[in-house]
Order: sequence, then C-alpha cells, then structure tokens
Amino acid sequence: MKMREQAITEKICPLEFAVNAISGKWKIPIIWRINEGEKRPSEMLRGIVSVDRRVLNQQLKELEEDGILIKKSFPVLPPRVEYTLTPLGEKLVEVLWKLNAWGELLLQEKTRI
Amino acid sequence: MKMREQAITEKICPLEFAVNAISGKWKIPIIWRINEGEKRPSEMLRGIVSVDRRVLNQQLKELEEDGILIKKSFPVLPPRVEYTLTPLGEKLVEVLWKLNAWGELLLQEKTRI
Repeated sequence: MKMREQAITEKICPLEFAVNAISGKWKIPIIWRINEGEKRPSEMLRGIVSVDRRVLNQQLKELEEDGILIKKSFPVLPPRVEYTLTPLGEKLVEVLWKLNAWGELLLQEKTRI
Repeated sequence: MKMREQAITEKICPLEFAVNAISGKWKIPIIWRINEGEKRPSEMLRGIVSVDRRVLNQQLKELEEDGILIKKSFPVLPPRVEYTLTPLGEKLVEVLWKLNAWGELLLQEKTRI
C-alpha cells in the first residue's frame, strides 16, 4: 500500500507542477500568441483584450523563469524585446493542442445539456 | 487580420475552458485517484492529505456537472456513493498523462538551474 501511495504521489507531482505553470492569468493566450509568431509585448497588448502592460510583463517573466520562453533584448532605440518559445515551450504547445481538443469535447458536452 | 483574430480566439477558448475545468483545488488528484480505482469519497479522504469532506464533495460535484465523473448512489445503510470516470473523463486522463510527461521535463529544467 505504501509503495502504491508513493507511486500515486509521484504521478501527481509533475502534473500539478505543469498545471501550476500554465494556469496563471493570461499565460495560455501569451504562449499561444508567441507560437503564432507574435514576438513583441506591444503586439500581445493589442491582441489580448484587457491585459495591462505590468501584468503582461510579470507573466512573461514567470514563463521565462520556467524555461518556457526566451527573452531577447535588442540594443536599439526605442528598446526592442522579443520572446520566442524554447524547446520545452514548443513541447508544451503540442500538449496544449491535445488539451484544446479535449476542451472542444467538454464544450460540446456542456452545450448539449 | 480580423479572421486571424477570430481563429486565435477560437483556438484559445476550448483550451481555457479545459484548463478551468481541471485547475480547481484537488481536482487533478481526485481524477487521478478515481482512475486508480478509488471510487469512494472516504477512500479519497484517506489518500489526499489535508482535504476536508466539504471541499471534496464540492469538487466532486463540479466534476460531475462537467461530465467528467458519474456518481452512483447505492440505497444501502450506511449510504454508499461511488464515482467513476465518464468516457470524457477517460479522455482527459490520457491528456493528463501527456501533461504529466511535460511536467517531468519542466521539473528537470527547474532542478538543473
């Protein structure tokens, strides 16, 4: 029984870790947009309605710290910053597509009731 | 541009819907345990440390309303209740395995720093 408990715990742990990393406000739209080729925060601000610059920067910082995004600063005036997905971030996008497909099933279920 | 906006919105929507459905406190451990064959709330209470009965029942209710779990009540004394995964719930478990695998990569990245 104890080993089974441990096995369950170990299985839950990376999963919860993963969910925590993506459940912050705006993180999924941000990852999605960068995947679509929108590299600059100013582009994201135009796209994601009702997010302010401070919140966006905080989310970008957390995603960078988690190794999902890479930040590239260009020494130009005005300063220019671009974000791209790391290989880890690209793998996340693949999983998000699967979760998106499941979300479609969930939506169908919900609208049927 | 407008159609692209719409396409992005539609892509985000089921995904965010999916993340919302699983990001409630204890939902993932609950789904995981039911998948492991723990059908009764009393078993879950023994397994999931620091969750109280009221919170557990609320989460089970939401998962049932989302069509992820089926509740079965047995007309016996003392009353007996069992939860199982619906086909939608089983599909979710498949995606969670993939998210779990990504979480392992994320953990490796984190512990390497």
